[in-house]
Amino acid sequence: MTDRIDLEHVLRTHLSPDEARRVSELLDNTPIPEIIRLVERTSTSKAGVLFRLLSQERALTVFEALDARHQADLIGALHNEDVLRYFDEMDPDDRVSLLDEVPAEVADELLRTLEKSERDITGVVLGYPRGSVGRRMSPEILLLYQDMTVGDALALLKRRARDLETIYTLPIVDRDRKLTGICSFRDLYTADPHQHLEDIMAEAVSARANDAAESTARWLLTLDHLAMPVTDEGGHLVGLLTFDDAHEIVEEADTEDAARGGGHEPLQQPYLSTPLIKVVRSRIVWLLVLALSAILTVHVLDTFEETLATAVVLALFIPLLTGTAGNTGNQAATTVTRALALGDVEKSDVMRVLWREMRVGFFLGALLGSLGFTLASFVYSTEVGMVIGLTLLAVCTMAASIGGIMPIVAKAIGADPAVFSNPFISTFSDATGLVIYFMIAKAVLGI
Amino acid sequence: MTDRIDLEHVLRTHLSPDEARRVSELLDNTPIPEIIRLVERTSTSKAGVLFRLLSQERALTVFEALDARHQADLIGALHNEDVLRYFDEMDPDDRVSLLDEVPAEVADELLRTLEKSERDITGVVLGYPRGSVGRRMSPEILLLYQDMTVGDALALLKRRARDLETIYTLPIVDRDRKLTGICSFRDLYTADPHQHLEDIMAEAVSARANDAAESTARWLLTLDHLAMPVTDEGGHLVGLLTFDDAHEIVEEADTEDAARGGGHEPLQQPYLSTPLIKVVRSRIVWLLVLALSAILTVHVLDTFEETLATAVVLALFIPLLTGTAGNTGNQAATTVTRALALGDVEKSDVMRVLWREMRVGFFLGALLGSLGFTLASFVYSTEVGMVIGLTLLAVCTMAASIGGIMPIVAKAIGADPAVFSNPFISTFSDATGLVIYFMIAKAVLGI
Repeated sequence: MTDRIDLEHVLRTHLSPDEARRVSELLDNTPIPEIIRLVERTSTSKAGVLFRLLSQERALTVFEALDARHQADLIGALHNEDVLRYFDEMDPDDRVSLLDEVPAEVADELLRTLEKSERDITGVVLGYPRGSVGRRMSPEILLLYQDMTVGDALALLKRRARDLETIYTLPIVDRDRKLTGICSFRDLYTADPHQHLEDIMAEAVSARANDAAESTARWLLTLDHLAMPVTDEGGHLVGLLTFDDAHEIVEEADTEDAARGGGHEPLQQPYLSTPLIKVVRSRIVWLLVLALSAILTVHVLDTFEETLATAVVLALFIPLLTGTAGNTGNQAATTVTRALALGDVEKSDVMRVLWREMRVGFFLGALLGSLGFTLASFVYSTEVGMVIGLTLLAVCTMAASIGGIMPIVAKAIGADPAVFSNPFISTFSDATGLVIYFMIAKAVLGI
Repeated sequence: MTDRIDLEHVLRTHLSPDEARRVSELLDNTPIPEIIRLVERTSTSKAGVLFRLLSQERALTVFEALDARHQADLIGALHNEDVLRYFDEMDPDDRVSLLDEVPAEVADELLRTLEKSERDITGVVLGYPRGSVGRRMSPEILLLYQDMTVGDALALLKRRARDLETIYTLPIVDRDRKLTGICSFRDLYTADPHQHLEDIMAEAVSARANDAAESTARWLLTLDHLAMPVTDEGGHLVGLLTFDDAHEIVEEADTEDAARGGGHEPLQQPYLSTPLIKVVRSRIVWLLVLALSAILTVHVLDTFEETLATAVVLALFIPLLTGTAGNTGNQAATTVTRALALGDVEKSDVMRVLWREMRVGFFLGALLGSLGFTLASFVYSTEVGMVIGLTLLAVCTMAASIGGIMPIVAKAIGADPAVFSNPFISTFSDATGLVIYFMIAKAVLGI
């Protein structure tokens, strides 16, 4: 902790040779995790200096630990030969994540520097669409055939253990490379060496390379598996999705959902190391869309301007009513968005969700409405109390229903549930809420 | 998929013996993951029926896969002897999670049924505070001493492999049980059998049992480790935090943040299996607090009622301005809340964050303000345009600053950043935004 703070103070873009020596020494005595954190908290140019002062091996470890977007940002600040070395040493799936983030000409150049075997294996991963399991899997797998003996398999593993991403989850194939089962290293290790793999293997829970990465990753983590075999459409083994890649996929998805739930795009790299302009860019479009949709509320109020002029008291409750509608809608939307992300709710559940949320909204509206009626009757008049109470009942029921089904509708049309729900609910519930409000007001107050 | 839908249709709380036989057969032919999903989508009473129709072993697997809160809910619907059996077979850390969710007298009764050795090991975990690493670790560890040979260690592991939660991450201790290093099974397996463990072990990244579970779990997953040794304050090995427990901790925390970011409490069990009344309960307190704080806005508007009566046009923009302030504030708050959760931002960064968000808010406000000025000038008048433009500039700067630092302030006073930010920002930015609006309006319009 102290080291990091020291380093944050002494790290500058222009260092004298003396200072550089001092920082380099400090870096040598700092644990790798602290250095990673420092890079995540500093600007690209300072991080570039830091990488130049790190030992080669440690620099590689730090680089590999960063998000792909962050890696891509750093490339310009690093020496070209260092970039090529990092790229060469990366796992094929991480390599592809980085390629996705750099301009096409840089990607081509990077790919050209790879040896043929490495380029081929990277090509396998690149061949699958973004957001698919294939794009995130490790294609480097050891083929264990079901007719091998346990002893032979253990000997093979001992020789190859160093090159593989994992040896703890072992997919088993037949002579056509079709996945036929799975075996944990623990089971293999404790089995009789003369048995055949087919005698000890268990039924494999596997994924298809074209499956969606997020739901597969959540599934793997729910099952507490270390890795899941990945097959092509014909059932042939093509790779392995490991728990750490699964966790990375889930964390990216959750960060994206958190961002969109809050009405902006995810930054995709640590907050403090993100240039300010990128922070603005992640928010401005949403804010504009939301503000422009809010013009609808100006329009609604414009329509009712005469009513407003007759009873200015109605204006006092506008923020309270639109706020409550927005809150109720967002409660329902975040619940259902999260349930969709976790797989607890599916598209086909739309009517079940609507029925649930309608009742929840009605109940919440009845509670808030009674309270609103009592308070407003007391401070203003019984008529105003009735308007407020009835409006709260109506808008809560409406907002919870809309908020509950919007994420599902979004998913059904292929949009991210988290994108579509928030702005839609804000605007829709504000505008509809105001219409309901003035209609109830006109009816009750007789204006 | 078809199986689940079939099962959803045929599963009822009252089944004739014939129907029960049919469901039981269907269950036997359904993969475990599908059965887990079904339990997560159905009511407690139906789930009780389902458990009775499952074979003993499969029922245990399904029960273990559920959230602790969900397990606790199900206890009343299950046969007592089944509950005791499940409880007996669970891992100590899962057992403790369940104990946390049931009433104290049930917890005592469950604990009494355990054998002494199991009760002791559960007691170790129970001894650590909620939310700590100790409460979530696996206390069942194999002691590997640094002066053992690789061959002896491998032989010991072969004998004990079945009883351990993991054999892939191996903490190494000295004869005082102090943690001195770590070794992966892969390294052990490929090492020379005559070497001593101290020659092949690496420096261990470990956690203290009293450390916060969430940050430790995120750290473990960031490092891509399968497990992390846990020590007491004296550095003695007391357990192991595994990646799957770490993932569970992180997922719970993310679900909680998603819920609070949306203004409600997390359900802690799958949405469709949650009784309606619990859904209402998870939302009503937040909604009430938010609505009651919104009374502040009624009060502010009441103060400016005269101004409003003079220029009713001002009322038209209220939802747009409060909405934009709320959106800007929430953007900043969700960004910083997520950054805090991921460890990208710390409490000591408060001034750095304030300075960033102030500039971001000013920039966003300047963009929206210019647009607002242009549109409002065009439709209404230049004066109205100026009021709207200046107000947008002011409220965006204010809301982003407040939204950015509130999560940090919340954390500094020991509250959940996600709890404190949302309601505070909504209310504060609505009320402050309105005051700013009317002050600017009075100045510009001269009323």
